[in-house]
Amino acid sequence: LDLNMVTERKVEDNHRQDSADLLIFIMLLTLTILTIWLFKHRRFRFLHETGLAMIYGVLVGVVLRYGIHVPRDISNVTLSCHVNASPPTLLVNVSGKFYEYTLKGEISASEISDVQDNEMLRKVTFDPEVFFNILLPPIIFHAGYSLKRRHFFRNMGSILAYAFLGTVISCFIIGLLMYGCVTLMKQVGQLDGDFFFTDCLLFGAIVSATDPVTVLAIFNELQVDVDLYALLFGESVLNDAVAVVLSSSIVSYQPEGDNSHTFEVMAMLKSFGMFLGVFSGSFALGVATGVMTALISFFTKLRDFQLLETALFFLMSWSTFLMAEACGFTGVVAVLFCGITQAHYTFNNLSPESQDRTKQLFELLNFLAENFIFSYMGLALFTFQNHIFNPTFIVGAFLAVFLGRAANIYPLSFLLNLGRRNKISSNFQHMMMFAGLRGAMTFALSIRDTATYARQMMFTTTLLIVFFTVWVCGGGTTQMLSCQHIRMTEGSERRSTKHESAWLFRIWYNFDHNYLKPILTHSGPPLTVTMPACCGPLARCLTSPQAYENECQLKDDDSDLILTDGDISLTYGDITVSTDASGAHISAGPAGTTSAVISADDLDRELTYGDHELVMRGTRLVLPMDDSEPPLADPRHRMRM
Amino acid sequence: LDLNMVTERKVEDNHRQDSADLLIFIMLLTLTILTIWLFKHRRFRFLHETGLAMIYGVLVGVVLRYGIHVPRDISNVTLSCHVNASPPTLLVNVSGKFYEYTLKGEISASEISDVQDNEMLRKVTFDPEVFFNILLPPIIFHAGYSLKRRHFFRNMGSILAYAFLGTVISCFIIGLLMYGCVTLMKQVGQLDGDFFFTDCLLFGAIVSATDPVTVLAIFNELQVDVDLYALLFGESVLNDAVAVVLSSSIVSYQPEGDNSHTFEVMAMLKSFGMFLGVFSGSFALGVATGVMTALISFFTKLRDFQLLETALFFLMSWSTFLMAEACGFTGVVAVLFCGITQAHYTFNNLSPESQDRTKQLFELLNFLAENFIFSYMGLALFTFQNHIFNPTFIVGAFLAVFLGRAANIYPLSFLLNLGRRNKISSNFQHMMMFAGLRGAMTFALSIRDTATYARQMMFTTTLLIVFFTVWVCGGGTTQMLSCQHIRMTEGSERRSTKHESAWLFRIWYNFDHNYLKPILTHSGPPLTVTMPACCGPLARCLTSPQAYENECQLKDDDSDLILTDGDISLTYGDITVSTDASGAHISAGPAGTTSAVISADDLDRELTYGDHELVMRGTRLVLPMDDSEPPLADPRHRMRM
Repeated sequence: LDLNMVTERKVEDNHRQDSADLLIFIMLLTLTILTIWLFKHRRFRFLHETGLAMIYGVLVGVVLRYGIHVPRDISNVTLSCHVNASPPTLLVNVSGKFYEYTLKGEISASEISDVQDNEMLRKVTFDPEVFFNILLPPIIFHAGYSLKRRHFFRNMGSILAYAFLGTVISCFIIGLLMYGCVTLMKQVGQLDGDFFFTDCLLFGAIVSATDPVTVLAIFNELQVDVDLYALLFGESVLNDAVAVVLSSSIVSYQPEGDNSHTFEVMAMLKSFGMFLGVFSGSFALGVATGVMTALISFFTKLRDFQLLETALFFLMSWSTFLMAEACGFTGVVAVLFCGITQAHYTFNNLSPESQDRTKQLFELLNFLAENFIFSYMGLALFTFQNHIFNPTFIVGAFLAVFLGRAANIYPLSFLLNLGRRNKISSNFQHMMMFAGLRGAMTFALSIRDTATYARQMMFTTTLLIVFFTVWVCGGGTTQMLSCQHIRMTEGSERRSTKHESAWLFRIWYNFDHNYLKPILTHSGPPLTVTMPACCGPLARCLTSPQAYENECQLKDDDSDLILTDGDISLTYGDITVSTDASGAHISAGPAGTTSAVISADDLDRELTYGDHELVMRGTRLVLPMDDSEPPLADPRHRMRM
Repeated sequence: LDLNMVTERKVEDNHRQDSADLLIFIMLLTLTILTIWLFKHRRFRFLHETGLAMIYGVLVGVVLRYGIHVPRDISNVTLSCHVNASPPTLLVNVSGKFYEYTLKGEISASEISDVQDNEMLRKVTFDPEVFFNILLPPIIFHAGYSLKRRHFFRNMGSILAYAFLGTVISCFIIGLLMYGCVTLMKQVGQLDGDFFFTDCLLFGAIVSATDPVTVLAIFNELQVDVDLYALLFGESVLNDAVAVVLSSSIVSYQPEGDNSHTFEVMAMLKSFGMFLGVFSGSFALGVATGVMTALISFFTKLRDFQLLETALFFLMSWSTFLMAEACGFTGVVAVLFCGITQAHYTFNNLSPESQDRTKQLFELLNFLAENFIFSYMGLALFTFQNHIFNPTFIVGAFLAVFLGRAANIYPLSFLLNLGRRNKISSNFQHMMMFAGLRGAMTFALSIRDTATYARQMMFTTTLLIVFFTVWVCGGGTTQMLSCQHIRMTEGSERRSTKHESAWLFRIWYNFDHNYLKPILTHSGPPLTVTMPACCGPLARCLTSPQAYENECQLKDDDSDLILTDGDISLTYGDITVSTDASGAHISAGPAGTTSAVISADDLDRELTYGDHELVMRGTRLVLPMDDSEPPLADPRHRMRM
């Protein structure tokens, strides 16, 4: 009986302690919010909220580490039971009563003393999986859901290049440089433990995930060039996904022999295969769930009940994450592509109130989760008990990161500029180089496993890299912008863009506009028109009545084009009626190549000047595009041809 | 090395399994949402969403119990280590590697076989504390935040009577009846284990928490009499709080002797003291946090940044819960009073967008949490492995619950009607009797501890009671309403209410209107007027500039009155200017008792006819109230006196 009560009291004390710990974080966040308000109120732009959250985390960490000392709880017992394996659940017989224990994880020998050490510090340390299961998903989903799709798709080729090729290049360059550094350290005798090439590569993957949230916030506020914004944002969003899967593949590198760190082609190919498999699987799952939500909202009248609609949206998005995790894929990657798909299709089917509600909900979740992670980062500087500060490694890492970023940006930009019509200017490249901040994803990846000497050193160094980039690079953004003479786009004068990814983009656009959007949303053109005659019945079934009737369809805040097809017969080069922003109808008859040019330029114009509501009927995208047109002065004049 | 990987894989498998389990619930909820939409679409009113969620839970439970069988995981090991105590953390030495295990709780001997039994069922079973820490707080907070304050305060006396006295009465009546039943069972030999009086009392406390969410939803839809709505809603919201603290006090009953089930006055007083202490402490904490949030939103211009405002609101409300739990009070009670306070003060300080955002956020959380709990209830019928179906006990329990509710409603209504001017009619009483549904709180309280035979029997019976009341009573509400001839209040004709709690209410109202609201919100009258002259500087500091300037203050959707003081000199019986709903100014000069009557009637009228925006200046509430006035026909005519 005594033991029973003692146990209950211990469990309750644990609970009270956990509540108190969580309360510390809530207080941190509250303080951060109030200070952010103060900064905004006084237009103080040198410290973004994430940098601020980190500072507060550091302060609290100092207090917890040096100010408060909770004495040892010597009742922690080490059982020396000799078992064959470590079961997930353990039943311990204590004088006739049974107690259930669940497996938390492995502890390295060095941590054992910590287990009995400063209890306070151990308490405010979260299980690393909390980041991947609870905190990162809302952040990544919000990034996908709030993607500025027009600019994203316009620069799709470059973004994909930076995100995939660039991250891999960065990873290997950093890995190689670190390997050199580590070998040097071993020679000099500064290395106290093992540090293999796979560890270096892992470090490279971890630290290649950029998170320029600070910079982008400033870009947004100052209305910096949208292309630069799109490139940076798109790259960061995708390279998080790539970095996660890359790091998993590197960790899973498992050669046949006894020594798990020799190079074996088969093992490498297996890791590579795993990368492809996990990435595609997560991508497919994310898109599938997004599509399913779009279909559900398309076929039901859920828009009459905003609470149900919002709840469904939230649940479907969350289920993506769980499904991916249950299938062994990566939840955050799935959630990213789900967010993009939801923004592209489902969003259009929601009622206006639900559009606001979902946006606000995920905005709030993103805000809270992000500031939580950054506070925790600051805290971890002092509460993590296995830091390994190795100056040589740290200096080497900073250098490697700098060079890795340079090897990512400059060569790729050069190659891309060969193909782009709208070149990425060199000051853009410098800005992108500068804006390679590291943040939440890097931290989460590095804290995931801190069992070995190598991982602990990596964690410490990563933390310092994050601090430096967020505080120094983030804080210096405004200066850098003026230094690089990057224009603010306040006015309406924009470049006429014959966008570089025209070919790739247009293939995608045709397919999306003519088939995917009509199936998944209420936009035109009706499928009965675009689909081959044999699929007639199916097309009639899948087409929304609104696709036939409504002209003013789908005004996305952010959509690419607003095209509806009212006339059934569409032919190459056919233009019928078009409406300019003021609502006046302008007719233009069919005219061979001129109309081809007009339509492409209309597409172009709409992409450039998002504010004009350009509704065109009966026009298909026409290929190939004639690019001998002079630059536009006033879009409306062109339309009246 | 092998063991390391095996452990990692086990931990990962655990994770995948957890994701899959959570996915089952998400799917359940999604299905529920779609079916709810279908029901609303076809106006099917016999099954509310909570009843529906339970049905789906039952179906899935059947599938999991009989359809899927996951073989034993024999790697669960029982260690027979002889330790003196059960430490919170256990380090197990497995061939040189250390594994950390955390204490989950005690397992009774009967459960041991279950630990190795159907793994699937164990997996979809949540730790009961999940309900109190994650699911119930949003539900309870939302109940407090969405309280219709006007009707609540108007019927405050009755509601408090039902909630406190009524719950205690119900608890003891049920406890006594069950004790009789159990003694009978013991005589007959049907009782296989111990069942003490404290267990009976606990059962009474648990089952006294009503949750008429179904009934209230129907009331809302059919626009049933607002007083009945207020009584039922207010009672349910408060008696949840009372039931939680009552059950904790009963559980903590600890007499000195060896036998923990003898009656000892000291122990009983101690329990009673604990009840008072925990309840008041939670109340104080909840109100304090609400007030603090109101002050923060009052003194800062946070309303310019809706995201920050909403985030702060959310965090402060959440911190109430954590603070209460950390201090050893009851989080859900604190959160309830925090919600009420936030709705009464902070809400007025928020920007309109944030008002919407916070309402929608908590509405969504409430919706998800509630349906989750009800689904889980249905599931638990089949996944809980220690059900004890004892027909005698079940029948006895149903009877006891029925009689307990009757002993709660009818005597108290009789007593209250002695004091109320607006009597609670007998058909209202019958309706309240009928609408005593049990729900989330009852379930959570009963599942909290299912270690002993008594508790398991109580859990099974509670589950059946919840099923019955939700499906049968909830489904039959519409019939009952017509059967009792309870009017729908569609039109504008309402009773003139000289409300029964006039005295209590007016004391509160004066204090609130003249002091609390001006301190915490931007409403008038300015404190410089209402506070004594000596506090002048303090009053000037605390008064918002808007209290002086704005006439049209604080249009709460739901506020009691809209009174502003423009004129500084207020005297007893002074009426200056009043504006009726159409905006015309009506002047009335000071006139002794007549004005006293008018002002009280104006108060009255505003309380009755919430739609009219009655702005009165320079009027204080006047006591005592003359109730010889004839019933009103048209409020505007009265005003023009």
